[in-house]
Amino acid sequence: MSTAEITALREQSFTTRRATVPALEDILYTPQPVLDHGFVRVIDYMGNDAAIVQAARVSYGSGTKQVSQDAGLIKYLMRHWHSTPFEMCEIKYHVKLPIFVARQWIRHRTANVNEYSARYSVLDKEFYTPDAANLAAQSVINNQGRGEILSPDQAAHVLHLLKSDASQVYEHYQEMLNENQQGEILDANRTGLARELARMNLTLNYYTQWYWKIDLHNLFHFLRLRADSHAQYEIRVYADAMLKTVEKWVPIAFEAFKEYRLNSVQLSATAWTIVQRRLAGETVTFENSGLTKREWGELETLMGKSATGHF
Amino acid sequence: MSTAEITALREQSFTTRRATVPALEDILYTPQPVLDHGFVRVIDYMGNDAAIVQAARVSYGSGTKQVSQDAGLIKYLMRHWHSTPFEMCEIKYHVKLPIFVARQWIRHRTANVNEYSARYSVLDKEFYTPDAANLAAQSVINNQGRGEILSPDQAAHVLHLLKSDASQVYEHYQEMLNENQQGEILDANRTGLARELARMNLTLNYYTQWYWKIDLHNLFHFLRLRADSHAQYEIRVYADAMLKTVEKWVPIAFEAFKEYRLNSVQLSATAWTIVQRRLAGETVTFENSGLTKREWGELETLMGKSATGHF
Amino acid sequence: MSTAEITALREQSFTTRRATVPALEDILYTPQPVLDHGFVRVIDYMGNDAAIVQAARVSYGSGTKQVSQDAGLIKYLMRHWHSTPFEMCEIKYHVKLPIFVARQWIRHRTANVNEYSARYSVLDKEFYTPDAANLAAQSVINNQGRGEILSPDQAAHVLHLLKSDASQVYEHYQEMLNENQQGEILDANRTGLARELARMNLTLNYYTQWYWKIDLHNLFHFLRLRADSHAQYEIRVYADAMLKTVEKWVPIAFEAFKEYRLNSVQLSATAWTIVQRRLAGETVTFENSGLTKREWGELETLMGKSATGHF
Amino acid sequence: MSTAEITALREQSFTTRRATVPALEDILYTPQPVLDHGFVRVIDYMGNDAAIVQAARVSYGSGTKQVSQDAGLIKYLMRHWHSTPFEMCEIKYHVKLPIFVARQWIRHRTANVNEYSARYSVLDKEFYTPDAANLAAQSVINNQGRGEILSPDQAAHVLHLLKSDASQVYEHYQEMLNENQQGEILDANRTGLARELARMNLTLNYYTQWYWKIDLHNLFHFLRLRADSHAQYEIRVYADAMLKTVEKWVPIAFEAFKEYRLNSVQLSATAWTIVQRRLAGETVTFENSGLTKREWGELETLMGKSATGHF
Repeated sequence: MSTAEITALREQSFTTRRATVPALEDILYTPQPVLDHGFVRVIDYMGNDAAIVQAARVSYGSGTKQVSQDAGLIKYLMRHWHSTPFEMCEIKYHVKLPIFVARQWIRHRTANVNEYSARYSVLDKEFYTPDAANLAAQSVINNQGRGEILSPDQAAHVLHLLKSDASQVYEHYQEMLNENQQGEILDANRTGLARELARMNLTLNYYTQWYWKIDLHNLFHFLRLRADSHAQYEIRVYADAMLKTVEKWVPIAFEAFKEYRLNSVQLSATAWTIVQRRLAGETVTFENSGLTKREWGELETLMGKSATGHF
Repeated sequence: MSTAEITALREQSFTTRRATVPALEDILYTPQPVLDHGFVRVIDYMGNDAAIVQAARVSYGSGTKQVSQDAGLIKYLMRHWHSTPFEMCEIKYHVKLPIFVARQWIRHRTANVNEYSARYSVLDKEFYTPDAANLAAQSVINNQGRGEILSPDQAAHVLHLLKSDASQVYEHYQEMLNENQQGEILDANRTGLARELARMNLTLNYYTQWYWKIDLHNLFHFLRLRADSHAQYEIRVYADAMLKTVEKWVPIAFEAFKEYRLNSVQLSATAWTIVQRRLAGETVTFENSGLTKREWGELETLMGKSATGHF
Repeated sequence: MSTAEITALREQSFTTRRATVPALEDILYTPQPVLDHGFVRVIDYMGNDAAIVQAARVSYGSGTKQVSQDAGLIKYLMRHWHSTPFEMCEIKYHVKLPIFVARQWIRHRTANVNEYSARYSVLDKEFYTPDAANLAAQSVINNQGRGEILSPDQAAHVLHLLKSDASQVYEHYQEMLNENQQGEILDANRTGLARELARMNLTLNYYTQWYWKIDLHNLFHFLRLRADSHAQYEIRVYADAMLKTVEKWVPIAFEAFKEYRLNSVQLSATAWTIVQRRLAGETVTFENSGLTKREWGELETLMGKSATGHF
Repeated sequence: MSTAEITALREQSFTTRRATVPALEDILYTPQPVLDHGFVRVIDYMGNDAAIVQAARVSYGSGTKQVSQDAGLIKYLMRHWHSTPFEMCEIKYHVKLPIFVARQWIRHRTANVNEYSARYSVLDKEFYTPDAANLAAQSVINNQGRGEILSPDQAAHVLHLLKSDASQVYEHYQEMLNENQQGEILDANRTGLARELARMNLTLNYYTQWYWKIDLHNLFHFLRLRADSHAQYEIRVYADAMLKTVEKWVPIAFEAFKEYRLNSVQLSATAWTIVQRRLAGETVTFENSGLTKREWGELETLMGKSATGHF
């Protein structure tokens, strides 16, 4: 979508009787950059903080209540896992993201998705190249995580391989299609391979894009998992960009989400017992804790940390 | 919700950059009456016909295309069962409906629901009483359908039973709660039974209400099943009222829905063969049709009927 | 279903290559009584603890691993909210339950349901009557809870009302249907009202029944909410009966569920800070806690309680 | 999974009271080859044709009914779009498939999925190479389809590009990981890049694998879309392999699915009118048809074709 088209969308103005959020209208349609070529932009939304309250009260009018009471109700709903009122808000994003990120993202099955189809159209030559600062070694303690940053030499070599392979597969993609990005035929004596086949030659760092629509309850669930420090960096930056849009959209629910989900702490039955024993003055060691080595380590880390690590 | 509150909601006016549908704004918040005490009213919506087209084209701008092309694309999508672009539109209803209707309705699991809670609040004294014209006998040919209308005498007797039982159970509901509809205590020397228990004494014709939010694809699926002549009359009238709101909201998609779903015809492999044999001039009888008696009957009925029975 | 039919089902024996759980086979098809006329019985199941492990390892064989490692992996999955491996197990129940309980239950949209249809068939004369010990007053502190048990006199009166109303509406149900429970016509000169209409005269304490099929992850979610002390007693007893079947089916996952969900503790960001301040020796009072009155009360209660309240 | 492990699984035999399908047990765990390195194999299942009938009858016993009646009921359910009884059967597959096929497949959100994780493990060097007979040109009439087969020369060139690029990106994948397929370090002086990053260098024709579990209703929906002639060849072959497993599993439901879904014909309101006009002897031409050019073409094609094209 061209800058001119976005400007045109942003210049339009309608009147509506629907709940409207000026802070979100301010950024409507505007791409928020993520990674080297990606973005997140809000395309449409339904509802606001008051819609959550209204659903919780159903037949009650929202007009007569004060904001402080509404905030109290929203916090209560979040704290006690009442999910349906949050489902009454809906948001639609346009996202541009690398295919390997899209493959993680799509596991969340509770959203509506329309993805750019490489059966129908030719993909642009745009692929993700990590910053050197994000080129990390395989973690030696966590099978699915990252460890140390690569040395400058090794990082340079990795970047060289990523770039040259991505460029080459794209060149061959065009050669197989017999078509350049402008849709012009390259060689009149050849037949182009079907797009649905040629695409298989592209690497997983190529960018795709989609419309992604979800209700607030399920969005919070997605964000809790993907804005988490265990999530892969390349999806976490999208979650972080979306958190900022949610803060503009439903500021009260967002505060409650931070307090009761994102920065909350979940303790197992045994871990809670340990906390209580300690509060009662007992010295609890690994040996008398009843925890496994791994859980003990996790609890120790947690103990030394404020729960406000995230935002 | 009082008339004054609805008027207040309808008098509010905001500016937005979002897609807006004036025809739907016209009826926003206004209850559309259904049955004797029920209603359907649109509370909020997201998207319009153009949003369907936009999702189908993803990265294409919708501004440059003409309406005729958009209509053609929407018809194509509907005809070829492309469901995801229709999922990009969302609508939220406030519905008041008898509990036995709510029990059928809730089977559709693809919506978000917030129902008035009789654990928390006292239900109003409002129950459904059918018109005499809708008091039909059990069908003798269809195990789950209606047959002839009851005679006036019998209808009057049924109505008497329904009304007197509904009144009595409500009187006892209040007695058990020890509370009238204004929340006043009836007898200071008694303790009121918990609402979550007392409600079990109400009959299934009592009205409940909920917020019900769904995307357009799943709404069409719901409407196809519930606006169908085989659906129970008491849910069909709700589906009919909602069809009218959809017509205002997404007129092009609505036309496509009528043409390719609501009034379309589905023929089994064998039935299609019979049509072809007949078009080729062959006389096809039940005996050489390959159909069961029941299917033959259904096909005969269909043959003599235009497919435009519904709207 | 008659006792003879259940006995016949239980006497059948087949050979299979599928994962099989002898402890669950022992109770297969046998109704576990709940409330006065209800039951829960397991009809079918797919998978076992090893299936969870196998899904987590995907291409790994499960045969080579020891049980202790499997248990460790299952605990790890539960602790870190990995939900998909638990979705690989599925169970199917046959449940008989009062309609007002069914209305709460059906809110969980992630199950497959086939309910007995009162459009098609006549409901039996079976309704729920609470024990006097469960006839509680409306809670004065919790809008959706129960308080004190009613006095014997008042309980007797409530039971009288519930029973006599339920009996009367059923009598009129039959009169409207012009049919007794054996399907015999009551009066040859009258026409019976359609079943789909007559059913509306029944009260919400009448029993219905359904087949209910769900995967283990979503079952755990259901059980966490419905076996909770805040759930209505009449649905909690069903959750408790199902917990016992899950314990037989997937004992390792069940232990993990108790440790990391059912008996776990969730602390908000602020509550966790308070725990840490207390562990550091600080005296934290309501005034300097940063909590609302309600949250402070909840935390106080939690502090004085082991987390093993449930099972 | 090794052949020895599959043999071991196939040699195990348990006794069960559950519904069992010998024809499906015969192929349980055995990979059914698809494409050059892919497969589909049934890992587990729940229910059979009788379970569908049983759910439809809920409280009725299945034992007393004859197969002919059961078949009639299943056909009736399929014909009248009763979906819930089919949801009572569940099947679990292990599938190995190219990533670009997996990306289409995952759009169906109604299944449970556990995919092999390239964050955690190193992917094998296995990529899809089409047969020359499947290397088709872009269709000139259908934007998302295939046209003519490429000439032998051009096909050879395409295959060369696909193979050499896939080999090269894998070589660099290993170099970045600093690890070969046996998990051995390639160069002790280098640090391996994190697996979650290195994987982005692989092309979309690399194979992945997953466990995929779904109920029969949603499986039928998937198969209707993916066994369709408009589906991409590379996913259609998987759908075809699965159709054969469904035929063994629930033969009666499978017949009904072919008759009322796979080989059925859906006619729009206008198309049905045309059929009726023709049956009445009228000559209907494009000009007086009321159809668009495209729809007229589709109807003409359909008219000349039996509806039994598929199986």
